[in-house]
Amino acid sequence: MMFGCNEHSIQELDSIETLMKQQEVSWNEGDLQGFMQPYLQSDSLVFVGKRGLTYGWDNTLNNYLKGYPNKEAMGQLQFTNLKKEMLSDSSAWVIGKWELFRNEDTLSGHYTLLWKKMNGNWKIVADHSS
Amino acid sequence: MMFGCNEHSIQELDSIETLMKQQEVSWNEGDLQGFMQPYLQSDSLVFVGKRGLTYGWDNTLNNYLKGYPNKEAMGQLQFTNLKKEMLSDSSAWVIGKWELFRNEDTLSGHYTLLWKKMNGNWKIVADHSS
Repeated sequence: MMFGCNEHSIQELDSIETLMKQQEVSWNEGDLQGFMQPYLQSDSLVFVGKRGLTYGWDNTLNNYLKGYPNKEAMGQLQFTNLKKEMLSDSSAWVIGKWELFRNEDTLSGHYTLLWKKMNGNWKIVADHSS
Repeated sequence: MMFGCNEHSIQELDSIETLMKQQEVSWNEGDLQGFMQPYLQSDSLVFVGKRGLTYGWDNTLNNYLKGYPNKEAMGQLQFTNLKKEMLSDSSAWVIGKWELFRNEDTLSGHYTLLWKKMNGNWKIVADHSS
């Protein structure tokens, strides 16, 4: 079974794109909890970042809170998705570039996200960011 | 459709594990071409590493050749898979820790691999390593 560029796939990937746009908005309002909304609220969430591997929604949020303690540190986030693909009816992956424009500097890197559709909602189950 | 711990899934994930064991052997023999064997031999291969994003098998090999010009630089590689899961009959992902034991130092980090079964063979189509 192939999951190519059929209309259903495009719709699903658009839903993911919309969630990521909302993440940008939340981040840029300084709302980390809102930003974290699409992450699977479970201990099984895996986040790989510059601190290494972190399991769980709460721990991931805490890392963000430590790394970005205020709106100035958070800056303005921009996602640019470079590759997105459905792997099955209920799983997809996205690779892209993140940029953080701040008063003093600009940070950037890449992310690989694994999304799963659970109870009708797309959720990030794994995030590898560097 | 769920892709859980059924026998077929376990067999498929074992095949991937075996390929990764062979990759360790190749690396530890100083054979980068052998190490690269399970990577999809295509321009669509995506590698995200410390140099950012690289497309294509040849470019990925060239980056490895630059970064690890000889057996001493390559050291002894060890993969420890922390999470592996089938996403469909023909796709799987693996998160793990890599360690490189060298005479002078030890490097380590994590990887997220996306595997697809193509023409009966499991291939890495995306590798995010950091």
